[in-house]
Amino acid sequence: MIEFPFSSMAGRLKRSEIRELLKLTRRPETISFGGGLPDPAIFPYDAVKAASTKAIDECGRLALQYSPTEGEPFLKEQLRDFLGRQGIRVDTDDMLVVSSSQQGLDLLSKVFIDPRDPVIVEKPTYVGAIQAFRAFDADFQGIEMDRDGIDPDQLERLVIRLIDDGRKPKFIYLIPEFQNPSGLTLSYERRKRVLEIANKYNLLVVEDSPYSELRYNGETIPSLYTMDIEGRVLLMKTFSKIFCPGFRLGWVVGPKPVIEKMVIAKQGTDLCTAAFVSMVAAFLLKDGHVDRQIEISKQLYRRKAAVMLDALETLMPREEGIWWSKPDGGMFLWLRLPEYMDTLEMLNEAIELKVAYVIGSGFFYDGSGANAMRLNYSYPSESQIVKGIGRLARIVKKRLRVSVA
Amino acid sequence: MIEFPFSSMAGRLKRSEIRELLKLTRRPETISFGGGLPDPAIFPYDAVKAASTKAIDECGRLALQYSPTEGEPFLKEQLRDFLGRQGIRVDTDDMLVVSSSQQGLDLLSKVFIDPRDPVIVEKPTYVGAIQAFRAFDADFQGIEMDRDGIDPDQLERLVIRLIDDGRKPKFIYLIPEFQNPSGLTLSYERRKRVLEIANKYNLLVVEDSPYSELRYNGETIPSLYTMDIEGRVLLMKTFSKIFCPGFRLGWVVGPKPVIEKMVIAKQGTDLCTAAFVSMVAAFLLKDGHVDRQIEISKQLYRRKAAVMLDALETLMPREEGIWWSKPDGGMFLWLRLPEYMDTLEMLNEAIELKVAYVIGSGFFYDGSGANAMRLNYSYPSESQIVKGIGRLARIVKKRLRVSVA
Repeated sequence: MIEFPFSSMAGRLKRSEIRELLKLTRRPETISFGGGLPDPAIFPYDAVKAASTKAIDECGRLALQYSPTEGEPFLKEQLRDFLGRQGIRVDTDDMLVVSSSQQGLDLLSKVFIDPRDPVIVEKPTYVGAIQAFRAFDADFQGIEMDRDGIDPDQLERLVIRLIDDGRKPKFIYLIPEFQNPSGLTLSYERRKRVLEIANKYNLLVVEDSPYSELRYNGETIPSLYTMDIEGRVLLMKTFSKIFCPGFRLGWVVGPKPVIEKMVIAKQGTDLCTAAFVSMVAAFLLKDGHVDRQIEISKQLYRRKAAVMLDALETLMPREEGIWWSKPDGGMFLWLRLPEYMDTLEMLNEAIELKVAYVIGSGFFYDGSGANAMRLNYSYPSESQIVKGIGRLARIVKKRLRVSVA
Repeated sequence: MIEFPFSSMAGRLKRSEIRELLKLTRRPETISFGGGLPDPAIFPYDAVKAASTKAIDECGRLALQYSPTEGEPFLKEQLRDFLGRQGIRVDTDDMLVVSSSQQGLDLLSKVFIDPRDPVIVEKPTYVGAIQAFRAFDADFQGIEMDRDGIDPDQLERLVIRLIDDGRKPKFIYLIPEFQNPSGLTLSYERRKRVLEIANKYNLLVVEDSPYSELRYNGETIPSLYTMDIEGRVLLMKTFSKIFCPGFRLGWVVGPKPVIEKMVIAKQGTDLCTAAFVSMVAAFLLKDGHVDRQIEISKQLYRRKAAVMLDALETLMPREEGIWWSKPDGGMFLWLRLPEYMDTLEMLNEAIELKVAYVIGSGFFYDGSGANAMRLNYSYPSESQIVKGIGRLARIVKKRLRVSVA
């Protein structure tokens, strides 16, 4: 057996426990609350076919060739207009098209993180961000969340402590809307406070925003990018949740010096994003299919979320320590169980009962969250949601310690 | 102006001088020998449209969803069969689909290169490899090339010296066929010697092979991957040159432990390659369009290369120090000029005369090669090739120092 001289980064890379566990639960008869998948029943298949034909007919030479590292100009214009329709004004010169927003996180890590550099994240946070930052040996610094997102006072205390230690954080990474995994949203007041802190201590804020268009309840809250007047917010967007994940297409908008560095990092990373997919996506945007798809998704996910919340209300025991978030959009909710429960231990029984979820600890860089789970409601059908929550409730009930008061 | 706390990697990242210079020469009336682009006149546009429709009609749900990080099984089978038709037997379990072979180089860097780790490359070598390895602060160790590729004796001496210094190289990176930029091919005898050396000193060999199918003269030489019996060759392949660059699709085949690490690295890098593009490519392979495209490309590039070689023969002065490679395939040839000439200095005049090339120094990690240039013959038309070489010859003649012997 040959021993290969792997790097220290390779030593830090671990197979995502979540992805491995998801494989176990991928039997077709299993009801899955596990993935983060849009509902394929609503994918606009005909629109994609038509846009593909258009991409070749109308700009085939460009569509099959290399594209500029910054992104196809035609796509960038469509993305600018798409954000404009949401009240987010951007300049295409401040934009980089990326091959998935996961690539955005990789490029961000490349241009900011040296080994043991502190980065501030929400607790819990997106597992892909943990993977990307950990590869570059980030020192994770977490802020607890409540119903309104992270607590700005806790954030400021942490920033002060780090700066006092001569370890100023490289950035604050937030998913302000319908956070993955918690489903929680950072309130407007707290957004203001977060920006005040960023301004006061001269910090970069990374606003990862894959779900903001999928708000099905309540009022839109302005993005941090829009509220920022100093040019210190980097906004990350993706097609994966608003349209489909199969394109691997995202875009990043932010301060020119940051975008510039990310462009150069992208040259060595994949040279450019696929021109073919860029052109297909540009036509889908131009012809209104993306906006339409968002409307369809919102209606569907509003219904599915309501079904899941109803099922939880009806079926889940109401014990001390059992709590779940009530998202106003997105794809996920977060179920917290009593501290003595362990969702990893419960998973075996869940697999037997043919229901899947993601264990909470996958979303914590420090392995906490063992008593929580993420539930996805965008992918399963409404009847599956009811059945699946029933099965989860059985598993939870079995483990309840009856208090003998 | 906000100062952002960039990483040390960001400090090493430089805009590719080549890409910047190419921008200057991108006026439509300029004859470009600069890029590495396939001829868009032969792109099979209708086949791509048909395959896109098929991808949606026959596997739309998978095509628009996330794919496994390892790659779409359907595509991997087609890639295995494609290599099989060339006599390269591979197991799909040893394969990773990548979002461009540039991504393969990024993943390779991630899993192998710690700062100042030595890696062995050809001199000159592919500029994208220099960018990827430099980002991770590789210590480049180069081997000169002659008509048959690198000299194995020089390779062995270098390996011994590095090992004696306690600095065993992480891998040997080679482009054995129609190398970019030189157009040179590593001979069969030397391949055997390179593998002997790799076996003797227990080294990984990275065989970057974007052009091997584009052999239009002479006999096929077995790939290092095929000749290797110890499982220490990593083979990197791409769609960009054999079909089109607009898909950003490549694949890597090699030792399981290396593929395994690269898969995990890919999770944090872009999660997975685009399922949509993967399905389109799978149908193009299955329906014979890729094999057909290779035949068409070979015929065209054979003719274009002959036109360029004829033009050089006829128009370029025959002075001491002027030499060009005579490739048997691929897209490039290498023109070496007398040592006192500087192709960067010449570029201004070339831009005036409306002809573009890539300066040689871009392909050397140490800035040497100032008296060389890379010439691409796949993209310009035959009449442009004749005209363009004429212009280059004028520029060279003007700079010749007449020896007063």
